[in-house]
Amino acid sequence: MSVLTPPLREFLDSQIVGVMCTEPAGAHPLQSVVYYVRDDERLLISSVVGRHKVGDVERGGWASLCVMGNERPFPSATFSGRAEVLTENIGPATAALAQRFVGSEEAPQPQTDEALASVGRIIVAIAIERVAAVGHLDA
Amino acid sequence: MSVLTPPLREFLDSQIVGVMCTEPAGAHPLQSVVYYVRDDERLLISSVVGRHKVGDVERGGWASLCVMGNERPFPSATFSGRAEVLTENIGPATAALAQRFVGSEEAPQPQTDEALASVGRIIVAIAIERVAAVGHLDA
Repeated sequence: MSVLTPPLREFLDSQIVGVMCTEPAGAHPLQSVVYYVRDDERLLISSVVGRHKVGDVERGGWASLCVMGNERPFPSATFSGRAEVLTENIGPATAALAQRFVGSEEAPQPQTDEALASVGRIIVAIAIERVAAVGHLDA
Repeated sequence: MSVLTPPLREFLDSQIVGVMCTEPAGAHPLQSVVYYVRDDERLLISSVVGRHKVGDVERGGWASLCVMGNERPFPSATFSGRAEVLTENIGPATAALAQRFVGSEEAPQPQTDEALASVGRIIVAIAIERVAAVGHLDA
C-alpha cells in the first residue's frame, strides 16, 4: 500500500529541491542538496558516475530525501526507501531535472541514453517506502 | 584550525533552519528539519528527551546539518562533527531558538535549566569539524 497520501504528493510536487542522504560504507551518512522530480511513487535525481552518493546507492541500495517548504513554518517530510542507479530510458527525467535546475519555461529536448552515458550522467531512483519526520503538513 | 570560512559563517547566520541527520544504531540514517543557531564553531538545536535524534546523538556522538538557501541557485553546505546533548546553561540558546521558531522580534526571557529539565528540553550541540557538499557559496 502506498505511503504517499494526497497531501504528501501535493507537497512533493510543489517543491523542486531536497536534501538527499546516503550511507557510505564504514563512514558517516552524507547529506547534499539535489533537484528531484516525482515519478509516481519514486523520486528521481540526476547525478554523475563518480559522485560519492552514486557509489553509496550502488553499494547500499538505500537513500532518503528530506523536502522542506521555504517559509515559516517550514512544512517538511523525509521520504526513504530502496534506491537504485538507472541508465536506461533516462532522457525524459534528465531533461525535466535540467529544466528545474535552470528554471526555464520548457524542458530541453531529451538526450539519448548513449549521449548521457558518454558524460556519465545517471538517474538515482528512490522508492518511497517510508515517510517520517512529517512536520506542518496535513498528512 | 577552523573549517568555517567567513562566507560559511555568514551563510550559517543568514539561515534559521536546516536538515539534521543522525545515525540510529543498526538502522538507516534519520533526517529531520530543525531550527538552529550558531555559537562560534558549534551549531545548537533545541529538542526534547525521547526523540530518536536525541537518543542517536547520545549513543553515537555524531550529527550533521545541511543548510540551504531558499532561492535558486539554492546555496548550501553540510556541516558535521561530534555532537552532544547539553542540559546545563541551556536557557539562552533555548530562548534564541524559541524566538526563531515563532519569528518574534525579541527572544523570550531565558528559562532556568531546572524549568527546561522539567519538560525534558535539551540542546544538541554539533561541533563543526567538517564542511562538505558546498554548493553556490564562495567558500
